[in-house]
Amino acid sequence: MSNFIRIKFEKLKDFCQQAYMNVGVPEGEAEMIADLLTRSDLRGVETHGVTRLPIYIQRLQKGYVRKEAKITVVKEKGPTAFLEAHGTMGHLAAYRGMEKAIAKAEEFGIGWASVGNSGHFGVAGLFPMMALKKDFIGYVVSNSAPMMFPWGGRERIIGNNPLAYALPAGRYLPVVLDFSLGVVSSGKLILSRKKGEKIPLGWAVDKNGLPTEDPYKGYEGGGALAPIGGHKGYGLVLIHEMLTAVLTGGKWTRNIKSLYEEDKSGIQGTCHSFMALDPECFIGREAFKQNMDRYIKSIKESGKAKNVDEILIPGEPEFKTETKRLQEGIPMAQNTVNELIALGKSLGLTL
Amino acid sequence: MSNFIRIKFEKLKDFCQQAYMNVGVPEGEAEMIADLLTRSDLRGVETHGVTRLPIYIQRLQKGYVRKEAKITVVKEKGPTAFLEAHGTMGHLAAYRGMEKAIAKAEEFGIGWASVGNSGHFGVAGLFPMMALKKDFIGYVVSNSAPMMFPWGGRERIIGNNPLAYALPAGRYLPVVLDFSLGVVSSGKLILSRKKGEKIPLGWAVDKNGLPTEDPYKGYEGGGALAPIGGHKGYGLVLIHEMLTAVLTGGKWTRNIKSLYEEDKSGIQGTCHSFMALDPECFIGREAFKQNMDRYIKSIKESGKAKNVDEILIPGEPEFKTETKRLQEGIPMAQNTVNELIALGKSLGLTL
Repeated sequence: MSNFIRIKFEKLKDFCQQAYMNVGVPEGEAEMIADLLTRSDLRGVETHGVTRLPIYIQRLQKGYVRKEAKITVVKEKGPTAFLEAHGTMGHLAAYRGMEKAIAKAEEFGIGWASVGNSGHFGVAGLFPMMALKKDFIGYVVSNSAPMMFPWGGRERIIGNNPLAYALPAGRYLPVVLDFSLGVVSSGKLILSRKKGEKIPLGWAVDKNGLPTEDPYKGYEGGGALAPIGGHKGYGLVLIHEMLTAVLTGGKWTRNIKSLYEEDKSGIQGTCHSFMALDPECFIGREAFKQNMDRYIKSIKESGKAKNVDEILIPGEPEFKTETKRLQEGIPMAQNTVNELIALGKSLGLTL
Repeated sequence: MSNFIRIKFEKLKDFCQQAYMNVGVPEGEAEMIADLLTRSDLRGVETHGVTRLPIYIQRLQKGYVRKEAKITVVKEKGPTAFLEAHGTMGHLAAYRGMEKAIAKAEEFGIGWASVGNSGHFGVAGLFPMMALKKDFIGYVVSNSAPMMFPWGGRERIIGNNPLAYALPAGRYLPVVLDFSLGVVSSGKLILSRKKGEKIPLGWAVDKNGLPTEDPYKGYEGGGALAPIGGHKGYGLVLIHEMLTAVLTGGKWTRNIKSLYEEDKSGIQGTCHSFMALDPECFIGREAFKQNMDRYIKSIKESGKAKNVDEILIPGEPEFKTETKRLQEGIPMAQNTVNELIALGKSLGLTL
């Protein structure tokens, strides 16, 4: 682990918060985003954690993202809410969206909030997890910048539009499922290209829409990534865009630029929808948690495949990583640390 | 097409209805189930259509399924409803569940109904499609009899737990996405075994939980089917069971017998949840449909892969098949027709 440096959660979070405050984000909101960002690393989802801090800060500095959150209610009817984020930072817009869905579920048993004109919000699973405090079920769906092809198409126009669920359990850990609809991320193809390795058929198509084993042709050379389950995942990508951008009148496909693209039009504009559901309206909160335990036990204690030690439940690896890293600190790649140090210097901060 | 016989929709539906009535199902309910069943064939989903009529009728005759629907409300709070189906036929229980979710959405903007102790309901997509009459978004999720393995496991204990969405559009066809979470169905492995063909790695594991290319080992020989997207699909299978059976206190995994297994314990007991969402609470119903059109157009008119004529939207093939078959009749396999004739004979009916 010579290329890794361990940093304590609180120290890393504090650095992030200071960075946000330094470019004009109010203290409370800076703390909220810093917490979400650092918890991503804490839970082992480094791809969506503090490694993105430099680009998030840059976008704030360039004025592509609001420094102060502005989230307004467009419509509100019973358990539903339609929020407009006006280009507020995605993490904050999503936090407020989930908060609204939870408040609705407290009153009505279910709550649904859709948020338009938001931005990149990091790790999807952190938002439905907010519902766990009430023993509610949480759900989020989002659209995203394009990286995949429509089934039968060849253009990189659809996002990997993630979804995430969180459900409370009793003596077992809560269940948290969080995934995007691509077979693999673009990062995997870039890595394969760097290593000079082929990729399996089924990961991507080239710019003509033909399956390719060449990682360069599959992404950087103009190709596009494949959805899980072929036409099944493709269909779900579309539904997720309909449940977010189409429902709120937001941006979709080509109109969403990635975090790393210049977009002087202003906001990134991804859209999200959030749902919270109270098990009390069904079998009851306590009975639900007990049932979750029984169900989880039946899966975990079923026969393991040869050479497998343990059957894991969604979210289990992340919770285990979190516990370990809270004690030992978060192992950060030297590259990322260097980038943070450089960012700190430009802001007058030390890590 | 010498092995196919074309039968008109109305004629086939009438036969199904008569068959149900003949074993004691009341006329209105018999008509409702016959319509759902025959529309499956009409839309090209033959695997879940009238080919199942003999087993459905057999189960009614054996008393494994109620002849008269009994669906009671366990709890009802605002937009949520918890229904108990007492072993009512799955098609009917699901119809009532979706109806309830839609009624709730009319009042509250969103509706969620969970139904416990139901049974096999056929084609999932037909239920959310009921929401289209109101220009609502419809959703259904169900658990099912076991056929897949948990990720890292080797036992055939989890279902392929389908989900389906239906969303209204304007000048385009409604979008209907309907899929189960297996890479392929067991039928594909049985067919490969009969043909003496290998199956691709990734379709199934053998009884030791190891990937196999042998279709027999992968299913009939004690193996289990693989979920789409590996651990992603596995996770979603679990969530779908939690949103249905765990939430309603119903049966799950090993406790659900397939339609073709004797289960003297009584009911099959699958559970379903239904959601309806009114776009009026967001961008508005008409604006939503216009937005759907714009979105669908952007996908359909994007660049096609080499040798592809048209990019399809979920549900499009089924609607096209429906239009064609309403005119030309439904092409039925000779085998299926023979089974229906035999069933008819035993009930004093002619096809």
